[in-house]
Amino acid sequence: MSGENGVSVTGKVLALLEVFSHETPALTLTEMSRRTGLSLPTVHRRAAELVAWGALERGQDRRYRVGLRLWELAALSPRGHGIRNIAMPFIQNLYDATKEQHIHLSVRNHLDVVILERLSTPRAPQVISRAGGRFGTFATGSGLVLLAHAPEGVREEYLGSPLPRYTDSTVTDVGLYRSLLAAVRRKGYASSDRMMGPDIHCVGAPIHGPDDSVVAAVSLCFRTGTRSVEEVAPSLRATARGISRALVGHQAG
Amino acid sequence: MSGENGVSVTGKVLALLEVFSHETPALTLTEMSRRTGLSLPTVHRRAAELVAWGALERGQDRRYRVGLRLWELAALSPRGHGIRNIAMPFIQNLYDATKEQHIHLSVRNHLDVVILERLSTPRAPQVISRAGGRFGTFATGSGLVLLAHAPEGVREEYLGSPLPRYTDSTVTDVGLYRSLLAAVRRKGYASSDRMMGPDIHCVGAPIHGPDDSVVAAVSLCFRTGTRSVEEVAPSLRATARGISRALVGHQAG
Repeated sequence: MSGENGVSVTGKVLALLEVFSHETPALTLTEMSRRTGLSLPTVHRRAAELVAWGALERGQDRRYRVGLRLWELAALSPRGHGIRNIAMPFIQNLYDATKEQHIHLSVRNHLDVVILERLSTPRAPQVISRAGGRFGTFATGSGLVLLAHAPEGVREEYLGSPLPRYTDSTVTDVGLYRSLLAAVRRKGYASSDRMMGPDIHCVGAPIHGPDDSVVAAVSLCFRTGTRSVEEVAPSLRATARGISRALVGHQAG
Repeated sequence: MSGENGVSVTGKVLALLEVFSHETPALTLTEMSRRTGLSLPTVHRRAAELVAWGALERGQDRRYRVGLRLWELAALSPRGHGIRNIAMPFIQNLYDATKEQHIHLSVRNHLDVVILERLSTPRAPQVISRAGGRFGTFATGSGLVLLAHAPEGVREEYLGSPLPRYTDSTVTDVGLYRSLLAAVRRKGYASSDRMMGPDIHCVGAPIHGPDDSVVAAVSLCFRTGTRSVEEVAPSLRATARGISRALVGHQAG
């Protein structure tokens, strides 16, 4: 069932979707053709079908963008919108009780961290994360939690590749990293102080699924020195436990 | 380029995705085959391709669900996640200032209202809306705003079909409905008092895009009688204006 060039039809349909990114959210047919390597007539026909279905939308500027129907379909993703909707009242409560900080809700996808939600209070320190964004590092508060609780194979694959350095405080020694992750599992929370930015401190806590595995992480990021881990960890862990309990209640589906 | 039964390949790929719904978020291959009318081997092969790409995920229960990668792709939808991310700090502020109510952020898709976000305070009255959900009625606070500002053809198509009645207060007379919509345009907000539920009052305000057209609506729903439109409308309209201004700033992309 493979078409031209041995690419499956599913692959060719998906190829048209995967050229859209945070950097290129709007593309012309010519750009889509160049980026996919598919001929202009093929792209034209497939794009029209995707527009008819609602997966893409065509603007008055003749550029194509990801469509509302795809967003609605994606709202059914248990690991995306699902966890996020269940977690929302809990992180909302945490948000109400805090100031000058970011709250992140994240899941792991193989060697990446995907951010499901970010709530930021006014005057929070600047960070580059965004809901729907993806990080290739685990040096964040959520990342350390997700890596600490990842299957050993995943953990070793990450530690086996060069560890990126962002600041003088970023841990890049594999032995030290292993101790750090062991401490995360022992203490029930992670602390990433200035590991990602010169004045950013993130504390993360694990969210457990119905089978008790860690399925997500919630984190608080604030300006280094404005509060302590000891001050932040209890309410963060309470939030994570609340979400974990709610996930068990929503196990069906 | 049509395959078996004259359905395009894009259509067959999308058919596998559109069987997932709020009611059926997890399906087996057999269920997917029955719902699409595609043969089991075709469904098996296509589902494997969709899993490899991340559009679907297969659970330990052998059921398929919408995958995280589709959620990430959908996060690029300007009319979905895009408006929602820009609006979030504003509706968050509104949430902080209010109690016992729901805040909805919605857009129109032809004759439907799609809910992008719902923030609900504790003890808010029960409503059936949810983020990612879709309504086929415009009798809500957001709906009246979106219909009032829809192109005339869309408005007349809706008013030309039988208008659903939910309560004794639901307006179903076409002439009355037209006056109601004219008032929404004149006043700059909509009020749906007990039109959808016996004790629910929703007030909606329009959000304008960069070209000044109405692209979304924000609404507040509370228990009828607990506050007045006059009390609610000013802060709601201020929120809508704030979001409209932010959308102009994010015009690029």
